[in-house]
Amino acid sequence: MRPDNRNPDQMRPVQIFRHYTKHAEGSVLIECGDTKIICTASVNEKVPQFLKGKGQGWLTAEYNMLPCSTGERMQREVIKGRQSGRTMEIQRLIGRALRSVVDMKKLGERTIQIDCDVIQADGGTRTASITGAFVALHDAVDKLLCKQLIEHTPILDHIAAISVGIHKGAAVLDLDYQEDSSCDTDMNVVMTGSLGLVEVQGTAEGIAFSREELNIMLDKAQQGIKELVAIQKTVLAVS
Amino acid sequence: MRPDNRNPDQMRPVQIFRHYTKHAEGSVLIECGDTKIICTASVNEKVPQFLKGKGQGWLTAEYNMLPCSTGERMQREVIKGRQSGRTMEIQRLIGRALRSVVDMKKLGERTIQIDCDVIQADGGTRTASITGAFVALHDAVDKLLCKQLIEHTPILDHIAAISVGIHKGAAVLDLDYQEDSSCDTDMNVVMTGSLGLVEVQGTAEGIAFSREELNIMLDKAQQGIKELVAIQKTVLAVS
Amino acid sequence: MRPDNRNPDQMRPVQIFRHYTKHAEGSVLIECGDTKIICTASVNEKVPQFLKGKGQGWLTAEYNMLPCSTGERMQREVIKGRQSGRTMEIQRLIGRALRSVVDMKKLGERTIQIDCDVIQADGGTRTASITGAFVALHDAVDKLLCKQLIEHTPILDHIAAISVGIHKGAAVLDLDYQEDSSCDTDMNVVMTGSLGLVEVQGTAEGIAFSREELNIMLDKAQQGIKELVAIQKTVLAVS
Amino acid sequence: MRPDNRNPDQMRPVQIFRHYTKHAEGSVLIECGDTKIICTASVNEKVPQFLKGKGQGWLTAEYNMLPCSTGERMQREVIKGRQSGRTMEIQRLIGRALRSVVDMKKLGERTIQIDCDVIQADGGTRTASITGAFVALHDAVDKLLCKQLIEHTPILDHIAAISVGIHKGAAVLDLDYQEDSSCDTDMNVVMTGSLGLVEVQGTAEGIAFSREELNIMLDKAQQGIKELVAIQKTVLAVS
Amino acid sequence: MRPDNRNPDQMRPVQIFRHYTKHAEGSVLIECGDTKIICTASVNEKVPQFLKGKGQGWLTAEYNMLPCSTGERMQREVIKGRQSGRTMEIQRLIGRALRSVVDMKKLGERTIQIDCDVIQADGGTRTASITGAFVALHDAVDKLLCKQLIEHTPILDHIAAISVGIHKGAAVLDLDYQEDSSCDTDMNVVMTGSLGLVEVQGTAEGIAFSREELNIMLDKAQQGIKELVAIQKTVLAVS
Amino acid sequence: MRPDNRNPDQMRPVQIFRHYTKHAEGSVLIECGDTKIICTASVNEKVPQFLKGKGQGWLTAEYNMLPCSTGERMQREVIKGRQSGRTMEIQRLIGRALRSVVDMKKLGERTIQIDCDVIQADGGTRTASITGAFVALHDAVDKLLCKQLIEHTPILDHIAAISVGIHKGAAVLDLDYQEDSSCDTDMNVVMTGSLGLVEVQGTAEGIAFSREELNIMLDKAQQGIKELVAIQKTVLAVS
Repeated sequence: MRPDNRNPDQMRPVQIFRHYTKHAEGSVLIECGDTKIICTASVNEKVPQFLKGKGQGWLTAEYNMLPCSTGERMQREVIKGRQSGRTMEIQRLIGRALRSVVDMKKLGERTIQIDCDVIQADGGTRTASITGAFVALHDAVDKLLCKQLIEHTPILDHIAAISVGIHKGAAVLDLDYQEDSSCDTDMNVVMTGSLGLVEVQGTAEGIAFSREELNIMLDKAQQGIKELVAIQKTVLAVS
Repeated sequence: MRPDNRNPDQMRPVQIFRHYTKHAEGSVLIECGDTKIICTASVNEKVPQFLKGKGQGWLTAEYNMLPCSTGERMQREVIKGRQSGRTMEIQRLIGRALRSVVDMKKLGERTIQIDCDVIQADGGTRTASITGAFVALHDAVDKLLCKQLIEHTPILDHIAAISVGIHKGAAVLDLDYQEDSSCDTDMNVVMTGSLGLVEVQGTAEGIAFSREELNIMLDKAQQGIKELVAIQKTVLAVS
Repeated sequence: MRPDNRNPDQMRPVQIFRHYTKHAEGSVLIECGDTKIICTASVNEKVPQFLKGKGQGWLTAEYNMLPCSTGERMQREVIKGRQSGRTMEIQRLIGRALRSVVDMKKLGERTIQIDCDVIQADGGTRTASITGAFVALHDAVDKLLCKQLIEHTPILDHIAAISVGIHKGAAVLDLDYQEDSSCDTDMNVVMTGSLGLVEVQGTAEGIAFSREELNIMLDKAQQGIKELVAIQKTVLAVS
Repeated sequence: MRPDNRNPDQMRPVQIFRHYTKHAEGSVLIECGDTKIICTASVNEKVPQFLKGKGQGWLTAEYNMLPCSTGERMQREVIKGRQSGRTMEIQRLIGRALRSVVDMKKLGERTIQIDCDVIQADGGTRTASITGAFVALHDAVDKLLCKQLIEHTPILDHIAAISVGIHKGAAVLDLDYQEDSSCDTDMNVVMTGSLGLVEVQGTAEGIAFSREELNIMLDKAQQGIKELVAIQKTVLAVS
Repeated sequence: MRPDNRNPDQMRPVQIFRHYTKHAEGSVLIECGDTKIICTASVNEKVPQFLKGKGQGWLTAEYNMLPCSTGERMQREVIKGRQSGRTMEIQRLIGRALRSVVDMKKLGERTIQIDCDVIQADGGTRTASITGAFVALHDAVDKLLCKQLIEHTPILDHIAAISVGIHKGAAVLDLDYQEDSSCDTDMNVVMTGSLGLVEVQGTAEGIAFSREELNIMLDKAQQGIKELVAIQKTVLAVS
Repeated sequence: MRPDNRNPDQMRPVQIFRHYTKHAEGSVLIECGDTKIICTASVNEKVPQFLKGKGQGWLTAEYNMLPCSTGERMQREVIKGRQSGRTMEIQRLIGRALRSVVDMKKLGERTIQIDCDVIQADGGTRTASITGAFVALHDAVDKLLCKQLIEHTPILDHIAAISVGIHKGAAVLDLDYQEDSSCDTDMNVVMTGSLGLVEVQGTAEGIAFSREELNIMLDKAQQGIKELVAIQKTVLAVS
């Protein structure tokens, strides 16, 4: 049995609230169980130096945890003066994942900035960030279409992410903090709406894992991502 | 008339939600109109170096704005590697204000860390932070009392804060962003529940202000703070 | 009685030496009792990015204490790699205060940089910085007029500042370090030559202060600022 | 055909030179084609704060590229004042990989510091770092055994790593820089000597990859790691 | 002829004012022509970590230029967040020079901190810093002797410094800024009161210099240092 | 006798390997006894801001030690976020030395970046860096000549450097680490191929040195530099 009595294939309840704050072009609160993240997408009519004049856009992401989002208060990174390796790794992952479903030519010479700020953390913040940020991105792109700044959507497909792991010998979907901190293998999987793999990041925390375990984990992840994409579609269906 | 049709003496609607996140000892969402701030109070069983062995506690505060909390996205301070002067000024103010109503001897050798993270900004974030943080502080102190870590509350009085200014020649209470960015004088006032002055920070943005204008502004601020303290009491009455 | 036997209304002796160093356009040593500060105003024929092409100038200020200016040697801020919150707060105050008496259009597209370096500190360094920097600013503007780089002075009025506080229950003018570190309320007041209020920053260090006390303090501050402006005028009368 | 005429299953020639520099306990130069990295393992008789008194050791890694190791000279990270996200990600990966084959209890209260400094880069620096660092680690542990500071080796298994990718539609082993910068999918695989998976990090640079492609890539990676472990064994067989 | 009509062997007028500020144990204003530097020596009853428990003291130095000390205002180093190479080089030189005449055992477990803050620069700031700092050090040591914290002076000899160079083909003593910025060779010489060499730092700015020129420069430097030591002795003779 | 049985006039064996890595225009491994340094010269078709449009080039240098190049592992400077004073002093010296033999007009508007990365340190790293970097510079300039980017070589003369010191009362050439850390005087001398002095940096570590000792040391240094220039010529003779 899992600590919160879920089945191995069972995700925590997911809720996505659109238009959560008023300033960003896209703003979403995503809740996956007790994990709560504000994901915003804001549009900047500039591109980074290396893309100037190339007729294409860019998307970049930043990730941050509020100091009291975790069990024991974390020091703000600005106090130390730099982002941790973990933060940089996560925001690079979020950016890569979302860029994989955006046609940068169609976006035009502008940058979409994704911000994922974790309000409350209970495991799975990087995957929930990707799933929520997609909805914020979608809303921001809709604004660009509405304002006729772009003619066709640059969004090629849905993108969502979920964690999966080996916990006490069994493959389980969507680890919460308690499972995550005691599992043998932790894997984050990012897939498109058409179920292509975009990122697979599996790490043996304790003992190494086998090809068989890898395949079982990927099966579960694929099932979870199907559910997440369905939720995204339902949420976005409301105009 | 004011931009949002309020009377000169009228504050924006204030809502304080307790127990907003689960990890910190005190956690509050305060909304003053469109200004929304998460204020948490967390307890650390240590004191800073300069207080070690002195048998007293400490309280300190940090303030931060989410990048998309403002109309145009702000760069995260961690990217630049340091807090801005404005941020430091505000968090020093929040800390001083709350310390003025805490008996550090009664708190014992522990530190209460206040975090004010602005989710959405529409003027008055520093004053709303103080008003909201007091409620989070109160909840954190209640936990210490419940756990019998302290015998008597170290909280001496309520504390709340409000802005007031001269806008188009008239004194107005509780400036929103639009008023704040076009006013002649901007003043932040911090008062105790018994209406003693703790901070008065008035700045002429355009033309200098007179003693008469100062007194009219202080009258309005005092009225606003009475209302805020009443709201704090109502919210805290629910156990 | 005050620690140095002054009357409650009595400022420490003030001396302002112009042309103190040779390189900056304006260079002043101001002494207020044992507080000694070098204030310079230097002219840069550029404006910050946000003002480019707007046909107006800018004024900005920096403040610093020499490590041995205080009783116990202070660490240089460059060693820590960043300015403290106190330093930033003070230099922002100095900049705002001086900008309030400068017509930026008349200044033209150039920046006046104020530097206040405390050689010896005995309380009241931020207010003495403002009073001294005004004289340095005046000298720098005179150079611009002499060189016919500007036609009319952009200086609209004098500006000066003084501290006032409640010490052992009594309102006193111009606190020295000993009083400042043991007072109940500390207030810094910045006023123009025509006695308009530009900044009022009052802080209850111990117990809160009343409206009556605030008014008594402001009366004393106004008297002090009259004297400071008279000294500025006398010093500047010498060509 | 691959740019350098290798077969899809063919790794570049690998050479490992032990005792490359004289100061560190283990010091290795690893060459994988034109990729050349100095990997050292040095022993520090301390553990990080969070492990003090727990009777176990630690291993940590740092990664760096010499400015002229790449085609266009890279700025030193110290000039910018901070490590890039890429650097942090890589050194965290190296550390995790090596820790997975070290019994920290048997290591005792000491830290092994791995340093991987890239002298010349031509793709695959992170995987070559892991493969080379294992040999340096082995030499450092041998010194501890020789000096009788530890009784039994804490090394549980070999560890090696290799990249694999989808390049022009075909799965290829051990990408050089030219292939890496134009491939559709790039995957780094870390495996133990007994062929357990420790890390799988696959990223779709262009189009998403399928489960079938993932399996083909893992097959190739496993073959490559077998070869690398054989090379490690040969090199270490010389006393 | 030299720009200011001095003879090749002629130093600029030197004045040393003791007890310049009141807080540091030793505080001196040294003026060498238009170069003006505040040199302080303050005593800290601690030693750096690497000397703890070794029964000896330490002396360290910091150097800084006020932003307006130079012809064109310099940016404060704290704004950039780090000291420049030039600053570090100079303060390391000052520290080494003064340490060479201090018996660290006799000083006991305390640190003397030298601070050299350049108020106005006109060439030769590093050498004037050494000459002035020696007097501040002497005063600080006298305070330690007075308070009977040490029994015997740890000062072994005088130390002074001067610049010398090849300017328009001729060797000249004590270069001012104008000469320094156009000379072929610039050399800083530090000598003890008994004329032992402590530092010789000669740099060809334009064409290389010969052994003969080196010897002529050293002769002039020695003469200058004799004069500086005589001035130090005269100034210190006044109790 | 010297620790490694050399004569006082005897340098350690010097080897210079050209074309050590493949990316930089010039790349050299220099070994002076156990001191081993990779020196590269890379060409950047830009000049720093202060030289733009002046029709001349620039040369700048950076120096770094690998963490395990020394007996006890050194912390990477990037971890602390800034270069040490020693590092900056050394790289400024290397840059000045090489610039003294380059005609910047003939170089044209481009920058040569020298990088000296110490692989293994055993004393004399700064002097070996200069000697080795000259060869890398020569190779980089040859590439510019080959590509006909410049018509005439901007290299005016050879440049080489050596240390010399007073160790146990005797002048010795080319100190290794053991001698360097226990000598009374340490001097670094940089000379051109025609034996002009470019830098003389002598420091009394213990007792002051005399003019006679200075002259003996310079004689030995000159002899060493003759040998180093001969080695440079031999190495460069091979095309």
